[in-house]
Amino acid sequence: MKSLFILILSLLLLSIINCYIIDGPGPTTRPTVGQLWPKPQKEERKTGQYVAIDPKNFNFVISEHTCDILMEAKLRYEDIIKGMSYYPSAIPKTEPPCTEYEYDDGSNEIPKVKIRNFTLILSSECEKYPHLKMDESYTIDVLAHEIRAHSIWGMLRGLESFSQLIIPDTNEMLQIEINMVEDYPRFQHRGLLVDTSRHYISVDVLKTILDGMAYNKFNVFHWHIVDDQSFPYVSKKFPELSEKGAYFAEMIYTQKSVKEVIEYARFRGIRVLPEFDVPGHTRSWGASHPEILTECGSPYSGKLGPLNPIKEKTLTFLKSFFEEVSDVFPDHYLHIGGDEVGFECWNSNEDIKKYVEAKKMTYEQLEDEFNVKAAGIVSDNVKIPIVWQEVLNENLHLKLPEDSIIQVWKPMWQVEMSRVTTGNWNTLLSSCWYLDKLKTGGDWKNFYDCEPTAFPGAEKQKQMVLGGEACMWAEVVNNANIVSRIFPRASATAEKLWSDVKVNNKTEAAPRLEEHTCRLINRGISAQPPNGAGFC
Amino acid sequence: MKSLFILILSLLLLSIINCYIIDGPGPTTRPTVGQLWPKPQKEERKTGQYVAIDPKNFNFVISEHTCDILMEAKLRYEDIIKGMSYYPSAIPKTEPPCTEYEYDDGSNEIPKVKIRNFTLILSSECEKYPHLKMDESYTIDVLAHEIRAHSIWGMLRGLESFSQLIIPDTNEMLQIEINMVEDYPRFQHRGLLVDTSRHYISVDVLKTILDGMAYNKFNVFHWHIVDDQSFPYVSKKFPELSEKGAYFAEMIYTQKSVKEVIEYARFRGIRVLPEFDVPGHTRSWGASHPEILTECGSPYSGKLGPLNPIKEKTLTFLKSFFEEVSDVFPDHYLHIGGDEVGFECWNSNEDIKKYVEAKKMTYEQLEDEFNVKAAGIVSDNVKIPIVWQEVLNENLHLKLPEDSIIQVWKPMWQVEMSRVTTGNWNTLLSSCWYLDKLKTGGDWKNFYDCEPTAFPGAEKQKQMVLGGEACMWAEVVNNANIVSRIFPRASATAEKLWSDVKVNNKTEAAPRLEEHTCRLINRGISAQPPNGAGFC
Repeated sequence: MKSLFILILSLLLLSIINCYIIDGPGPTTRPTVGQLWPKPQKEERKTGQYVAIDPKNFNFVISEHTCDILMEAKLRYEDIIKGMSYYPSAIPKTEPPCTEYEYDDGSNEIPKVKIRNFTLILSSECEKYPHLKMDESYTIDVLAHEIRAHSIWGMLRGLESFSQLIIPDTNEMLQIEINMVEDYPRFQHRGLLVDTSRHYISVDVLKTILDGMAYNKFNVFHWHIVDDQSFPYVSKKFPELSEKGAYFAEMIYTQKSVKEVIEYARFRGIRVLPEFDVPGHTRSWGASHPEILTECGSPYSGKLGPLNPIKEKTLTFLKSFFEEVSDVFPDHYLHIGGDEVGFECWNSNEDIKKYVEAKKMTYEQLEDEFNVKAAGIVSDNVKIPIVWQEVLNENLHLKLPEDSIIQVWKPMWQVEMSRVTTGNWNTLLSSCWYLDKLKTGGDWKNFYDCEPTAFPGAEKQKQMVLGGEACMWAEVVNNANIVSRIFPRASATAEKLWSDVKVNNKTEAAPRLEEHTCRLINRGISAQPPNGAGFC
Repeated sequence: MKSLFILILSLLLLSIINCYIIDGPGPTTRPTVGQLWPKPQKEERKTGQYVAIDPKNFNFVISEHTCDILMEAKLRYEDIIKGMSYYPSAIPKTEPPCTEYEYDDGSNEIPKVKIRNFTLILSSECEKYPHLKMDESYTIDVLAHEIRAHSIWGMLRGLESFSQLIIPDTNEMLQIEINMVEDYPRFQHRGLLVDTSRHYISVDVLKTILDGMAYNKFNVFHWHIVDDQSFPYVSKKFPELSEKGAYFAEMIYTQKSVKEVIEYARFRGIRVLPEFDVPGHTRSWGASHPEILTECGSPYSGKLGPLNPIKEKTLTFLKSFFEEVSDVFPDHYLHIGGDEVGFECWNSNEDIKKYVEAKKMTYEQLEDEFNVKAAGIVSDNVKIPIVWQEVLNENLHLKLPEDSIIQVWKPMWQVEMSRVTTGNWNTLLSSCWYLDKLKTGGDWKNFYDCEPTAFPGAEKQKQMVLGGEACMWAEVVNNANIVSRIFPRASATAEKLWSDVKVNNKTEAAPRLEEHTCRLINRGISAQPPNGAGFC
């Protein structure tokens, strides 16, 4: 696999431009060579001028601050770079069909500097966990042989970019174009939601997804860990939840594996944002705790509905359970869902009917009442709630904690984003990045066309947009196809959330995404083809 | 993985029916237990009466005839059955959420017979290669402990069915329901097309696909081996074709690997039908042999078009090349394409223009003339041509060899099937089984709704339908996602082509396909979910 990537890059160096793509043989979209994904804020390339790297004798040198995250990242990226070393056997035996090449074989005028070390200058102490307001900026100066960052998170992003700039040279050597990169993300929250309830996704596959996220500079793993179908999270306080609610005894996330995922993500600068969706989407909770769900009455007798919002037991349970997960997941935020609550069951339950009648409230108000209580529990545990857009359906000024975040996921998102930000809420967009929606051909382009601030509203409203998330709902994916379904389609989202608003040209992006796909495959991420016929 | 499957089956035995599926937790579609895919022509099950199998002491005994194919199949299926053995660690610790079970723990009245041997009674000598008219019928008699078949190909299908009937029991044992199966395919030609030109698919992945095909009783691997984009087939006579036309030096099928694929398929009763598409889709041939392609004139000057049909060189080259591939691929048929020939380039070439003017012919007629010649070359090499539907566009009674087969792939296929069979041509259908077309959700149901004889025409016309093929064009797939894109969607096609015309109930099929997907995954085929949320 690795040799393949090198081979491709080699060929691209050997072949070049001005050949018939349309109607000719070869791939639909020729990959770029050594270009970054997502596109950085600023680059100054000395086009065609390269510095040599000998992968066998290459090391990162850590300067100023360091920590476990940086030491592991140093080794990880040294491995990636060594893995790119040049395999003579992989040289194409002949030139590609369409070629008019001139190859820089060292005989040109620019003498190649050989880099042995690249210095990682981290100017402040490491933070332990990534967080919403982390600093992810960095600079790369190829001629000075250094990556600079104020924070460990910026340094991780810089290392990723550095590794993407490197391309093969001859004689088992690598090279990197002389370049100055100044980079930082446009949005703070760049997430990928993974649903592990509709299908159980193994911890190994979750780690592969986290690797893929790091290669795309995603920084939030939104773990939609439980839902109606199954409850794989093994609770310390309520082990019966997964014992009875998981699909199978083996299809669970133990405390140990949850820690493993959080740690794996932390080392890549990725937050793990858990979601325990209430009061709907809780049917699997009822396998062990039917007493907290609503017992439906006629015509749904015998069935269980959403959490029963008027029972003391429900709130007591949630308090205790949210206290646990607030402790298990270190992120400052806790996603408590709030989407798709149907009122049929509540409306068929005599106690609930009496309750709303006595209080002269609608079911929407009952839901609001519950959501405010649930969000209050989150606050009590010193976390900030994130909820789906429905929570504000009735009342834009619902009494949620001040910094709560609203995640917009429904179609016609422009209207909703406009509305939510009018209410001064922090907002995330997901509507245009649903990975479970399929389309024949290159649907990354639809993802790429989505600009999260393109809704009617004042500048102040636009500033309420913290970012967004691509969503991998798991009705249609299992361990076999989840990675190829996510990548490289989610890469389009990653670039929209990282790069400047002006980076919106699909024609420019397509060959870069083609290269990025080759890169992902080379690094063990089973990415699917983005652009049609091709060699990756 | 294996233990997972057992676990699932065990749970299904332990849990049972009468529990809330809708609105309840658990999968969207509960898999069946020990049901066959594709559905056999006839089964007589003694429902609930099982015979025990001890996988550790189980063997097939070969009776009457044998050969290399049977000996290897015996080992292969013994391995599959041993791989199903019962792992105590995999027993769900608790009952599933919805359960009212009664488990047959051996204490019921029906004493379990323990099978140690199952006899494979093959009543005629093995043929070396599978072929269009091979006999694939077989019977399984569980109580007599035997599978009977007249031909090795039927025996392979019987072994596959037998392995699908086996389910786990307790105490590391397996069991099989008492059953008499009488089975044979409805159609002779049940194919899967795999395009290895738009993306190069590794030989290992092709073998995985062949395994998956065998588990679905497909019998033709239509190898769309070269196309415009790349030429990975390594010719003995013209090695320059792949040297210059393959994407990369390593992205090739050597003579050795072609033999390997053919042999792997033969051992599974699968024909390898190669396609070398002419006169269009040949742009990659021009990387080494531009002289046989059409040099376009203005406004396409400098470009190369389809094969040049009026050059002696073209025909000489084809004669020589088709002679080689007729020798390399043992199947009686050779697919020579004939689809999507644009006339722009021919019409811009002065020599061709003069030719058609002198002969007072249209470009359609020029194409016909070429196709007849190409088909003649196929005949000269004692092969029968298969072509895409366009070849008959102009003239339904084109002078192709008598037994030629027409493959219908365009939309509105009912009209075309009707037309082609009126002309008394053998016909294959593919239009409704294009695997590259994507749709959110369970699109196997669309595949399943397609009945190949549902076109206007007499019974005699319907009899011209030899079967069909699911088509995996590779613009959108690479090694990473091709297997999950094919399976289990192509399984729907497999059942339509094997089972009785009356087998057309999607509600009945859905849980069976869910089980089949679990089975495929258990056997190492990365199948994607067919029906929504689930545990496979």
